[in-house]
Amino acid sequence: MNRYWSDTVRQLSPYVPGEQPKIDNLVKLNTNENPYPPAPGVLEAIRRETGDGLRRYPDPNADALRAAIARNFGLSSNQVFVGNGSDEVLAHAFFGLLKQQAPIRFPDITYSFYPVYCRLYGIDYEAVPLDEDYAIELAGYNGRCGGVIVPNPNAPTGRALPLAAIETLLRAQPDVVVIIDEAYVDFGTESAVSLIGRYPNLLVSQTLSKSRSLAGLRVGYALGDAGLIEGLERVKNSFNSYPLDRLAIAGAIAAFEDRDYFERTRLKIIASRDRLTAALGRLGFTVLPSGANFVFARHASRDAATLQQGLRERRIIVRHFAQPRIDQFLRITIGTDAECDILLGALEEILGA
Amino acid sequence: MNRYWSDTVRQLSPYVPGEQPKIDNLVKLNTNENPYPPAPGVLEAIRRETGDGLRRYPDPNADALRAAIARNFGLSSNQVFVGNGSDEVLAHAFFGLLKQQAPIRFPDITYSFYPVYCRLYGIDYEAVPLDEDYAIELAGYNGRCGGVIVPNPNAPTGRALPLAAIETLLRAQPDVVVIIDEAYVDFGTESAVSLIGRYPNLLVSQTLSKSRSLAGLRVGYALGDAGLIEGLERVKNSFNSYPLDRLAIAGAIAAFEDRDYFERTRLKIIASRDRLTAALGRLGFTVLPSGANFVFARHASRDAATLQQGLRERRIIVRHFAQPRIDQFLRITIGTDAECDILLGALEEILGA
Repeated sequence: MNRYWSDTVRQLSPYVPGEQPKIDNLVKLNTNENPYPPAPGVLEAIRRETGDGLRRYPDPNADALRAAIARNFGLSSNQVFVGNGSDEVLAHAFFGLLKQQAPIRFPDITYSFYPVYCRLYGIDYEAVPLDEDYAIELAGYNGRCGGVIVPNPNAPTGRALPLAAIETLLRAQPDVVVIIDEAYVDFGTESAVSLIGRYPNLLVSQTLSKSRSLAGLRVGYALGDAGLIEGLERVKNSFNSYPLDRLAIAGAIAAFEDRDYFERTRLKIIASRDRLTAALGRLGFTVLPSGANFVFARHASRDAATLQQGLRERRIIVRHFAQPRIDQFLRITIGTDAECDILLGALEEILGA
Repeated sequence: MNRYWSDTVRQLSPYVPGEQPKIDNLVKLNTNENPYPPAPGVLEAIRRETGDGLRRYPDPNADALRAAIARNFGLSSNQVFVGNGSDEVLAHAFFGLLKQQAPIRFPDITYSFYPVYCRLYGIDYEAVPLDEDYAIELAGYNGRCGGVIVPNPNAPTGRALPLAAIETLLRAQPDVVVIIDEAYVDFGTESAVSLIGRYPNLLVSQTLSKSRSLAGLRVGYALGDAGLIEGLERVKNSFNSYPLDRLAIAGAIAAFEDRDYFERTRLKIIASRDRLTAALGRLGFTVLPSGANFVFARHASRDAATLQQGLRERRIIVRHFAQPRIDQFLRITIGTDAECDILLGALEEILGA
């Protein structure tokens, strides 16, 4: 504690991101990055933008990127908000849309940044327990509240809700904003984007960090009714006029242009996930059904933290959450099949010992 | 107004950045960008980083960049905070350090983002009038307040305070944070960085957008006591773990490595400023003494908004603020000598007409 801090700083509990080890030759399966490189056109677009023009401010509204995203989803540019990763987009959404009188709701086991935003902005919340199968229990989202945020698929469980369930949620809460955080949606989960025209309270957030292989470029976006987007713009323009640099804008536009590469890599990851899920089952793991680029798995007899440590000694990093109800699970990012095989070999060795 | 907005959004008055026209062949002297390109090493470093590694998250703490900045200033890494442009750095500083019970103070004529941050975070402020020469009046900063932020040199006036005046300010306000916003300091103003060891309440913010020719890359930083920096880190880690992408980190590190290029370009801009100031004087302008890469100039007999419009018709963009006390001034960014000559030629034409 420093005497000069504001009261806000004093009571924060900052988010702790997954480790980014500065060690080479790791099999890194802990932060849900994509095992495939960005589309070749992305790297070309960034190289083209790397020139004298960097002395100039970027377009503060990133109009060209918003147009590219709008085209991709069949929306208008005024239904698209872009930011420095979906974390920044969500931060603005918490401040601008979810900060209400009544407490907001999200699952008790979910992306651990949500309660951090609440603390930052002084937002009350109620954590709605997942059911016994670690699925989101829709009934818990009925009745008066200040807003709802649900990831679909959920993290770290990977479990997805069907579109009909999202629509039930929207119908139950027409007077508050419902955010569907679709960071992992492209790995086999139905997107709620198709509902945007019908629900003016629906905001969908997505990211280029996972399915577009661009975690290092920091671009996320939200899609929704123009009124919601305008609210986000007002917060953004009271915070930082230019959150996306010129290189990020150029690279992100190119990422939406190569649909074929996007399809091929996301389908490969889905296939690897199915293969890994089956193999983990044979090793005695229970694996929750996943609609994401990771699996959440628990071994029948071995302690998760011990398994994580054993993998780490073999230079394989997976994520473990020392948190009630899920402390016997490991969250494992889907790597290439070769990386998955290294993981499986190491687990066999540890389990056999 | 949208029914889903939070009360916060409803009462915001967002910042309006200087125009970024999407027209070619402009002489663009409105947003204080550097007329010289980034150092060659910066572009090389970005190109090297443009590869498959973009699929990975950046270092959330940007340790390598913080170390490079610390080395440049003879500080430790824990005295350095980095962010997505100094606008983001300042936003976190307002929330984390300046949000106090008592109102904060800043000049009545200054960077127009300060009152916007206050509105965003619910911070009271008192605007302290500049004196009749548009200089900062130190006496106005005595007595109980919640904090102080002063740009040095000030914007849009360009007027600088000597280091002794900054120290007077720090001595007058030992119990609250004093932020010196040094966005333009490298163009001939004394930096307060040398005072950091002695004043635990001093935070100095700087940017790579101006003197390092990297407005398009979005990197800013704050320097100060490790306790203040820790407070900023807590806010940042409750907002967005990874505000700087991999390309921005790589480019920014390289920008601090080429000291010679930095020195040469900033001295060229200072020389061009002196030359432009003299020439504007010959055309009947009063030019405030500037320690920045822009001048603030008023014509003896011609209306500033009319002059701005006349320049615009000749494809020359300068900035005008329709604001009491300064609505007869133009803020003109220092371009190359060739650009300054085009400006002077156009002014001669307009004034002669």
